[in-house]
Amino acid sequence: MAEKITPRSENYSQWYVDIILNAKLADYSPVKGSMVIRPRGYALWEAIQRNLDDMFKATGHVNAYFPLLIPESFIKKEAEHVEGFSPELAVVTHAGGEELEEPLVIRPTSETIIWSMYKKWIQSYRDLPLLINQWANVLRWEKRTRLFLRTSEFLWQEGHTAHATEEEAREETIRMLNVYKEFVETWMAMPVLTGIKTESEKFAGAVNTYSIEAMMQDYKALQSGTSHFLGQNFARAFDVTFQNDKGSLEHVWATSWGVSTRLVGALIMTHSDDKGLVIPPKLAPTEAVIIPIFRNKNKEEIVAYAEELYGRMKGDFRVNFDADDANSPGWKFSEWEMLGCPVRIEIGPRDMENRKAVLVRRDTGEKEVVGIDDVPGRVRQLLTAIQENLFQTALERRTSHTWDVDSYDRFKEIFAGEGGFVRMPWCGDSECEAAVKEETKATIRVIPFDQPDEPAGICPRCGKPAQKIAVYAKAY
Amino acid sequence: MAEKITPRSENYSQWYVDIILNAKLADYSPVKGSMVIRPRGYALWEAIQRNLDDMFKATGHVNAYFPLLIPESFIKKEAEHVEGFSPELAVVTHAGGEELEEPLVIRPTSETIIWSMYKKWIQSYRDLPLLINQWANVLRWEKRTRLFLRTSEFLWQEGHTAHATEEEAREETIRMLNVYKEFVETWMAMPVLTGIKTESEKFAGAVNTYSIEAMMQDYKALQSGTSHFLGQNFARAFDVTFQNDKGSLEHVWATSWGVSTRLVGALIMTHSDDKGLVIPPKLAPTEAVIIPIFRNKNKEEIVAYAEELYGRMKGDFRVNFDADDANSPGWKFSEWEMLGCPVRIEIGPRDMENRKAVLVRRDTGEKEVVGIDDVPGRVRQLLTAIQENLFQTALERRTSHTWDVDSYDRFKEIFAGEGGFVRMPWCGDSECEAAVKEETKATIRVIPFDQPDEPAGICPRCGKPAQKIAVYAKAY
Repeated sequence: MAEKITPRSENYSQWYVDIILNAKLADYSPVKGSMVIRPRGYALWEAIQRNLDDMFKATGHVNAYFPLLIPESFIKKEAEHVEGFSPELAVVTHAGGEELEEPLVIRPTSETIIWSMYKKWIQSYRDLPLLINQWANVLRWEKRTRLFLRTSEFLWQEGHTAHATEEEAREETIRMLNVYKEFVETWMAMPVLTGIKTESEKFAGAVNTYSIEAMMQDYKALQSGTSHFLGQNFARAFDVTFQNDKGSLEHVWATSWGVSTRLVGALIMTHSDDKGLVIPPKLAPTEAVIIPIFRNKNKEEIVAYAEELYGRMKGDFRVNFDADDANSPGWKFSEWEMLGCPVRIEIGPRDMENRKAVLVRRDTGEKEVVGIDDVPGRVRQLLTAIQENLFQTALERRTSHTWDVDSYDRFKEIFAGEGGFVRMPWCGDSECEAAVKEETKATIRVIPFDQPDEPAGICPRCGKPAQKIAVYAKAY
Repeated sequence: MAEKITPRSENYSQWYVDIILNAKLADYSPVKGSMVIRPRGYALWEAIQRNLDDMFKATGHVNAYFPLLIPESFIKKEAEHVEGFSPELAVVTHAGGEELEEPLVIRPTSETIIWSMYKKWIQSYRDLPLLINQWANVLRWEKRTRLFLRTSEFLWQEGHTAHATEEEAREETIRMLNVYKEFVETWMAMPVLTGIKTESEKFAGAVNTYSIEAMMQDYKALQSGTSHFLGQNFARAFDVTFQNDKGSLEHVWATSWGVSTRLVGALIMTHSDDKGLVIPPKLAPTEAVIIPIFRNKNKEEIVAYAEELYGRMKGDFRVNFDADDANSPGWKFSEWEMLGCPVRIEIGPRDMENRKAVLVRRDTGEKEVVGIDDVPGRVRQLLTAIQENLFQTALERRTSHTWDVDSYDRFKEIFAGEGGFVRMPWCGDSECEAAVKEETKATIRVIPFDQPDEPAGICPRCGKPAQKIAVYAKAY
């Protein structure tokens, strides 16, 4: 199977698609812009979903479900929101055999339908904060799609919170950004930058958008999650007020935040190699696979010996026992490598004789021989080591491809080459930002929270005084 | 709060709605036919979902995700399917600012899109069986809706399996019907009848439909889950063939099966009373609530004493500690009763003095005083007893309202009265079945698996020889 994967060095985009199709993570569908998430891909999403959901609940959030269809007039109530989303809407005009009086749009995001309900539910400061999350499908019509990274329909979660004060809402916005950062770094082994988006890159309807940005193996940035401070924009659009503790009426403050099945794409792109998928152990559906190596004459004995190990491990590990004799051991090694299983345990006749087993790491390919009784303990250590190594490898990639730059020539040189993350003073002008994009295809990913104490200097492109250091990259 | 609930005896439908709105399980939405599932209602769905999902996985199934939108031409490929679903479709005609070349329908169920993919994935008998489930939203345009029981959009799971032989597919159909029965009886404490549907009630596109049918407190039946043997209908419609182990091509055999958020409605209707919701302990988000009873002078002491118990219990139970002093103990008792919490633990000054606590069962209202150290053990016993009692109560209701009838006069008399489940011989004629519905509003819910050994007798309505005993009821 492995020979079907195009090497990264040859064609990075094709490598990505080859891995997804060969590992059966997803498939193209007959519906333009929509993909099918196959069981192996969905298992990754389920692992992400379960662990993120625990983190949402630990921070006081509860789940709910709001309608898929939104009256067209609702989307139009917030001026920037409708302007941003109009070009991407899918519209239901007929239902139940009749033309609808008012068209309904399929949710591209749920602020409008949710705030129409919050109007019913919020009267007093005692009803706040309201900390609701939704796991759902959304649809944003796309012309150019890419499996997991950009599809018309995708799965996501969207948190929508309501607060009595600006301060609380701002705190929530940053809290959830940090939850995303922690989840992605700890579970997905993906280091991310955090910071605020520029005006031109922010969510349609937000006051401020914050994001987590990861670097892929081709040194491009992937926006992996966003958290928005919405101010009172949606509260005003839907006239949601509350009586504060002094008895007067105020508009409610809002946040929203989301991550999507795009994270599965990020996971694949960050860690995988030319042999196939590499999955961080914490999210791997199968942490270890036991493969007995036998010929017909010794089959029974070896399978029984390996199965005994399987019996000892299966209560404590997500472990698979592959004793299928339709395929050769070599075929199985490649197959499990392609599927990204972190540790392979081989047991052949010599190993059995010596009461040993061979352990092979998916990330480095390193082999070691250990006593059979030490296998479970050693596998546990390896899983921890692999998780850590994947994070460190990704971090080193980012570190080696991040530059502080104060010359626009150097900037252009970097993006004419391999690219990466470039920290450079920015004047704060949207036109200058647009010109950089036009000239180099690099955009401002975030303005990071950590800024130098002294003034940021001069914007090298336009020569005006710079307000902040911005991080530029080419992006998916 | 409790006074807002209309008694069942006065108006059963209003009682049901009052419970949902007062317990904040769901709300009406501004989108015709769609509801909002509020956090407390969604928590019930999450509990159902998690436990059912475990049972699906234990029987070898995996989850996947297929597109929401289906090309209109796909729906039309299976003749009965399109006839059944056409009147309920919502149609997307415009997207991305343009009129679509081919309209897309929002999935009312996913057989067609899934079988269009199975055509790509199935070539050989080695690809079978394919055991895939999907958790998703679906939409069937409805004119008359009822919270949870019938809404245009609803959440559900749909299993879609592909098999090499008719026998295997038939086995799978019955296996999943039994999984539903086991889940609903064990977790939801709802006894259900199982059996096969008549031609007029079967799924559009199925060869046979089987269902689980529960009896509500108004003695009406609620179809709570269905499992379909689809024969080769969808394989033929989408030309899905496989090479069998002898090398020749055959069409694949199929099943599909589903339960939906309707189960939340069934749960509410089966167990709740005039004080509010009653939730079977196994699915209750909160199994027990500890309520300290204090005045200002002894508050600190009592709260500390009760909190110590909370500390001891919270690792082993889903337990809540309600020491909020904005509300009186009496108010809290009513509130937690309305929310259906199975066990209430009251701790007042006298209890503290005697190292005791008062336990109150939600199902029977029975109180008992137990030593403080015995509380966790006794709560565990009570939870088991309540789960069992809810099931037995529902079973006795069904038993006392199930009749074997061989006279159509008696049949009409029953349905002019309280109603229930009536077992009566049926000729097998759809016209006779339709006439019974016209005359009494009762329909055949299932033809049960357990049939008498001797011939079933005469259909009392038409006098023709009966093929089977059928179970009739008025239904939601």
